[in-house]
Formats: sequence, C-alpha cells, structure tokens
Amino acid sequence: MCNIQKKAIMTRALSVPSANAPFERTTIERRELRPDDVLIDIRFCGICHSDIHNAHNDWGTGIFPMVPGHEIAGVVTAVGAEVTKFSVGDRVGVGCFVDSCGECEYCLRGEEQFCTKGVVLSYNSLDYDGNLTYGGYSQKIVVKEKFVVRIPDSLALDVASPLLCAGITTYSPLKHWNAGPGKKVAIVGMGGLGHLAIQFAHAMGAEVTVLSRSMNKKDEALGFGADHYFATSDPDTFTALAGRFDLILNTVSANLDVDAYLSMLRVDGTLVNVGAPNKSDQYNVFSLLMGRRSIAGSLVGGIRETQEMLDFAAEHGITPQIEVIRADQVDEAYERVLRSDVRYRFVIDISTL
Amino acid sequence: MCNIQKKAIMTRALSVPSANAPFERTTIERRELRPDDVLIDIRFCGICHSDIHNAHNDWGTGIFPMVPGHEIAGVVTAVGAEVTKFSVGDRVGVGCFVDSCGECEYCLRGEEQFCTKGVVLSYNSLDYDGNLTYGGYSQKIVVKEKFVVRIPDSLALDVASPLLCAGITTYSPLKHWNAGPGKKVAIVGMGGLGHLAIQFAHAMGAEVTVLSRSMNKKDEALGFGADHYFATSDPDTFTALAGRFDLILNTVSANLDVDAYLSMLRVDGTLVNVGAPNKSDQYNVFSLLMGRRSIAGSLVGGIRETQEMLDFAAEHGITPQIEVIRADQVDEAYERVLRSDVRYRFVIDISTL
Repeated sequence: MCNIQKKAIMTRALSVPSANAPFERTTIERRELRPDDVLIDIRFCGICHSDIHNAHNDWGTGIFPMVPGHEIAGVVTAVGAEVTKFSVGDRVGVGCFVDSCGECEYCLRGEEQFCTKGVVLSYNSLDYDGNLTYGGYSQKIVVKEKFVVRIPDSLALDVASPLLCAGITTYSPLKHWNAGPGKKVAIVGMGGLGHLAIQFAHAMGAEVTVLSRSMNKKDEALGFGADHYFATSDPDTFTALAGRFDLILNTVSANLDVDAYLSMLRVDGTLVNVGAPNKSDQYNVFSLLMGRRSIAGSLVGGIRETQEMLDFAAEHGITPQIEVIRADQVDEAYERVLRSDVRYRFVIDISTL
Repeated sequence: MCNIQKKAIMTRALSVPSANAPFERTTIERRELRPDDVLIDIRFCGICHSDIHNAHNDWGTGIFPMVPGHEIAGVVTAVGAEVTKFSVGDRVGVGCFVDSCGECEYCLRGEEQFCTKGVVLSYNSLDYDGNLTYGGYSQKIVVKEKFVVRIPDSLALDVASPLLCAGITTYSPLKHWNAGPGKKVAIVGMGGLGHLAIQFAHAMGAEVTVLSRSMNKKDEALGFGADHYFATSDPDTFTALAGRFDLILNTVSANLDVDAYLSMLRVDGTLVNVGAPNKSDQYNVFSLLMGRRSIAGSLVGGIRETQEMLDFAAEHGITPQIEVIRADQVDEAYERVLRSDVRYRFVIDISTL
C-alpha cells in the first residue's frame, strides 16, 4: 500500500463538454484507492466507434462533460492493500466495464456483461456509489482489480488497447457460436472490428470469407487470413453464396438487408450482430423458417474471456492494425472514422495529453 | 403385392378450382403403386391454417385445381412389392411432405424438411416426375413408405391427424431448443398449434407460461398443463415477465412487437417462430445484444422425429382438442378458422366425402 491511497488522485484528461463539442484538455479526479483497487498509468487508449456515438449523444444517453475511452492499456503504479492479482509495474488493460454486482448468476459464471444489476461502464455511467465514470482518454485510472486484465508480454501496449473492446467483441461470438475447423464463417465489414474478426476466426481454424462493400480491401483481407473475399455491392454475391455459411458475424452498424444475409446461411446457421444501427432492422419470418436459421446479438465478453482472448491473441500473433495519434488529433480522428478513413483503429498516445 | 398396382387409382376428393373458390367434390387420380409405395385409405384429415393460405393463394404459389390437406390419418390397404415397414391394415399418417432427394446431408441425417433439392410437399407441389401433388382432402393417397409414419394404437385416428403438422411443428422446436426440466418456456398463442405446444412443453418437464391476447382461455390453458397464463393485451405483462424465459415459441402468424417479446427472454434466450406473417417483422439490434438473445424459425420436422413425436404423444396422452366436421362443412370451417372460432383444430371425417 502506498500513500497515494490517502487522497483523491488528480489526472489530466480529454473531455467533451457537451454533445458534439470539440475535445478539451481538463483535469479530473480519480477516487482514492480502495483495498481492491489498482491505479493504472494509461499509456494508450483506442478509439471505438461507440465513443463517437456517445460523444455525439446519438443514443440520447450522454452525460456531459464526458471522458470517453474503454480500450485502455497501461501499467500498474499502485495497488490497494488487498490486491492479489497485480503488482506495481504490471502491464494491464481495462475494457468496457469496471464493476458488476458479483452475485447474480451471470457474474458468478463470469459473464459480467449480462449482470442483472447492470454493469458499471468504464465511462458515461454511474458507479454503484452514484459517481459518474470517466474513461481512458486520461492519464490515470483507478479500477477494481477484478476488472483489470493482464496484457501478455508479447503484445505491445499500443496494439493491445483495441483488443479490450474490438477484440473481445469479435472473439466472444466466434467462440460462442463455435467458429473452428470445418466451419464456414463470414465476416461482414472490414473495419476496426472486422479486421480483428478475420484474424480470430482464421486462428480458430474456420474457413473465413470477408463480405465487404467493394473489392478495395481484398488484398488486406487475405493478408489477415481470409480464405475468400466478396463484394456485397455485387448482387451476384448473394446467389453465389446461397446456403454457404454456418455463421455470419456482422460487424457493421448500418441497417442490412437481413433476408439477403440470412439466405447465405446453411441450415441451423446464425447471423450474429455486434454492431447496432440506430433504426430497426427488418426480416421476413420465412427466411428463418427455411433452414431453422437464427438472428442473434453479442455484447463484448466477460473478464475471464477477455483474458483468454488476450492470451489467444498473443499466442497466435493477432494484433490490430493501428494508427497512433496525438491527443490533439482526436477530433480529426472522429471525423475520419465517420468517413471510414482509418485502417483500422486509431489509438491515442496518452503521453501526448 | 396386389393387382391394384397395375393401374392408376381413382379417388374422390375435395378440390378448390381456383383461388378463394368454394370447395367442389371431384375425382382425382393417384399413381399406380411403385414397389416402395403404400396405398392409404384416408379416414381423417386435419385443417391447417396453411391450407387456407394456399387455397386463397395468399403466398402467390397456388396451383389450381388444388386438393389441400397434410394432416392425414388412415389405414394401409395395399403395399408395393418392396415395402418392408407396413402391412395392409396398419394405422398410419402422412404429414407435410411425401418425398425428398434422400442423398443430401439433411436427408441423410433425417431432417428431410431441409432437403437441398427441395422436399415434395403433400399438395400444391410438383413431384420429382413433374406431377402435381394432391393432399389429404381425399379418400385415398399413394405415398412412398419412407414418408409414412405409424400411428400408435392408443391414438385415435381423428385426434392423431393434427399431430402430423401442428404436432411436429411445435414438438420439433421444443426439442431442438431443449425445453425440459429447469427451463421456462412461453407459448405465444393458443390455437391449433399453441394448445399442442403447451401439452408437449409440459410433458417435457418445462415450466410453461401461455401468452394469449385475452384472459379468455386461461382455464383451458391450465387444463392443458400450463403453469402460468398472461394476457398480452395488458402492457404490464411485458414488464412483469422481463428477462423470464429461456424459450418463447411463437405460434401466431400475425406480426408481433418483436422487441417487446425479446425483452421477456433471459440471457441466451430464443424467440422461435413457427408461423409466418405475410409482412416483415422488425427488431432493434439492441434487443439482441443485451442478453445475447436470438430470433429463430423452425419448420415442421423430419420423418424420424415425426414418429418420435407420435410415440411421445401416445406415451404422455397428448391429443389435440378437435371438432370433427363433414366434407360439406369445409368452406364454413375455413371461415371459422379465420375468425379464430375453433377450439382447437378442425378435422374432416373423410367418410363423408
């Protein structure tokens, strides 16, 4: 225990004062370390598309001023008295949530994202004491050790950061729906999520097909491990691939022609969404009946599975392709994400904050 | 082998000459028995809601004149030379399809309904020789023995007939999605399908909740084995049952407020549709993400599972509640089905044809 626990911790951060406003440098307070807390010096934080939705208040749930960021990679600089998993100097990560009830059936089985009390999100959320949470666009964060994961030595902190959200968001459904040898998996969209999904599905042993709007990213897709690549702007794609896939993982947040995608599933196949468009999707029930097909959704993953994902990524050399930016480039980066002008994930170098 | 095989077989039938026209008595021809065919004297045929859709050409796929009927119960009166499963006098049933390729992976695993060549439906379908199939609103039918099932002695032929479609349509998804002890299952709608689904889910050991528009059918639902009953016309139902069910089996063919139904599912719960409305349904992807929920569809069941369902029904004393009608009452019965004025399935007494 170090004496930093005796007082609240001030730290620099990038904050959005109100919806759609540019970022400002500010100073925020982190809580004194509790016995089960760790203090993390944040080195890198990825920019997730949902950061932009929140900063723009697209979902109507924004609380301002807001400090976004839930792809946090850093180094432990202090630990509470009862911390057992981590020591000062450990390389660690924090993802989308920082607390859960710990008692419900979902917490008990390690799927905290489904906590019946509701998880405390890493930012734009009220913790169980009623305090607003601030995310990773900041230099320090205090997190309960249970919600901190270890970053394997072979993963650099900058490339590790996007794994904390984009990585687990794609790894978890691929595992849950049994991507693996003998399975034909399609990845829809090749952005921050999609380019990781290709690598995970390939490493799991599945036959991987990328479905992207145009043929532009074909060579890169094959480089990430895709076996096949088709453009969804070509209507022949849907007839050529009719009844082909066991699993289609849709990483795109726009509305899809759901029936067209369902037609590419085999019997018992599943179309899994990990992105959420603002408007409802439509489907004809016949598309489900004919082939006992399913439409499903998946939401990040639990802490245990996040650690498993990081270890898997390290073992298989899976890393996001990133563009590291300075703190003063975040507004521009948001605009570029909205124009799909990023290959494939922006990561903020927090030392520039 | 009896000499009836040497010539085509003429039989009386009820036919719809054109979409929406009243039924007419007519005479149709059945094929000569092939070596693997059985000739069945039809005693009873259930009226399925899809008969009405087809006779009214609601799906635009009607071929007229049409002889509907795919809930066929009768007695074998002749068998082809190579028939091994059945003998003259056997009590048998025929359901929704009468042929499949027999070679694709789905046929090989006994899920002929998903045959990649396409099953031959019992009526309004072209068989593999290009001949139009005629269904069970007739006195005789010739069917390949592989597509004939045995009706257990303890099931009367009249109550057995609706099991051939309504029974397997509800039994198969309950089995596939593991309805059983410890599982909370909701049945949406209490018509021909729903009142059987309650009995099957109860006999499988699940806790069964009926979701019906009004409270009108509560006592009957409890009589069929339901543990709970709620009216969906009461908005409080959806809040009271939030996050409750492992499986919701929707037997209603009308469009639903899908998001409201999804909100009643637990984590990993599934909303399975067995009816198909004409128009598309809508859902918000967030309803799926939050709880890794699924929307699925199920289509009747294979021949092996249909036999299993009949044996299960016989063992557990599961029977549809039926109203037996004469052949001259079919038009009126169709009108009554459309008014939901039937408890719960009409069955035509073919001896009146």
